[in-house]
Amino acid sequence: MKKLVLAALVAAAALPAAAQFQKPEDAVKYRQSAFTVMGAHFGRLGAMANGRVPFDAAQASANADIVAVMAKLPFTAFGEGTDKAGNTKAKPEVWSQADKFKAGATKMQDEVAKLQAAAKSGNLDQLKAQFGAAAQSCKACHDNFRKE
Amino acid sequence: MKKLVLAALVAAAALPAAAQFQKPEDAVKYRQSAFTVMGAHFGRLGAMANGRVPFDAAQASANADIVAVMAKLPFTAFGEGTDKAGNTKAKPEVWSQADKFKAGATKMQDEVAKLQAAAKSGNLDQLKAQFGAAAQSCKACHDNFRKE
Repeated sequence: MKKLVLAALVAAAALPAAAQFQKPEDAVKYRQSAFTVMGAHFGRLGAMANGRVPFDAAQASANADIVAVMAKLPFTAFGEGTDKAGNTKAKPEVWSQADKFKAGATKMQDEVAKLQAAAKSGNLDQLKAQFGAAAQSCKACHDNFRKE
Repeated sequence: MKKLVLAALVAAAALPAAAQFQKPEDAVKYRQSAFTVMGAHFGRLGAMANGRVPFDAAQASANADIVAVMAKLPFTAFGEGTDKAGNTKAKPEVWSQADKFKAGATKMQDEVAKLQAAAKSGNLDQLKAQFGAAAQSCKACHDNFRKE
C-alpha cells in the first residue's frame, strides 16, 4: 500500500499546475467536490478515532488512501478568475496570501501521509493521535481561507 | 503505475458496501462529487483523444489513474433512502433494476481499467479507441439511470 501512496503522489504531481477547466465555476465545483469526497473518507477515520465505530485497520487504511489521493486534487483548481465564481466559499486571502495557502495545503498533505501510515499500523492510539494532527491541519486552512 | 491501479482497486473493494453517511442527502452529495471529479479527469483524456490538446502520455496516465480511483466510489452511496434525497438526478430504476445498474457500473469500471492501460501505452490511437468505449459505458448508464 506504500506503493499506492507514492504512485498516487507521483501521478498527481504529473498533472499540470494550471487548472484545465472550461469555466471558473467548473473549477469551483471540482475543488468543492474533491473536498467533499476527501471529507467523507476523513470522517470515517474520525469515527474510528473517536470510537463511534469499531476500529478496522483494513478499512482505516482504505479510507486513508482515498484521502491521500483526494488531498492532492483541489489545489489545481484555485486558478486566477476562480475567486468569485460559482458558490465559492474561498476568501480573497487564498490569492492575496498565496504562499501561506500553499504552505497550508502542503502541511495538510504531509499530515495526511502520516495518517496513512497510522491507519495501516493497526494501532488505534496512533490513528487517534494522527487523526487529531491531520484534522488540525484542515481546520487551520478553513479558519484562514474559507468563509463561514 | 500498474501497482497504483491494483492497490487502489483493492483499497476500494475493502470499503464497506453499505454506505456510511449520516443523512441521505450526504450520500447524494458524495456520489455527485465523486462523479464530478471523475468527469473532470475523464474530460481531460477526452480533450487529448479528440485532439483539443496535445497528447501527453504521462498526463493521460495520471488522469486515467484518478478516473479509476473515482470510478469505484459513487456506487457505495446509492443506498436505500437515497432515491429522493438532495438534488439527486437518479431515476427510480437505479433501485428497481438494481442488477442492471450494478452491471452497468461494473462495465464502466472495466472499460476504465482498459482506459488506464491505453493511456499509459503512449499510443494515441489506443487512447482514442478506448476513450470512446469508456465514454459509451458512461452514456449507457446516464441514458438509463439519470434524469435529464
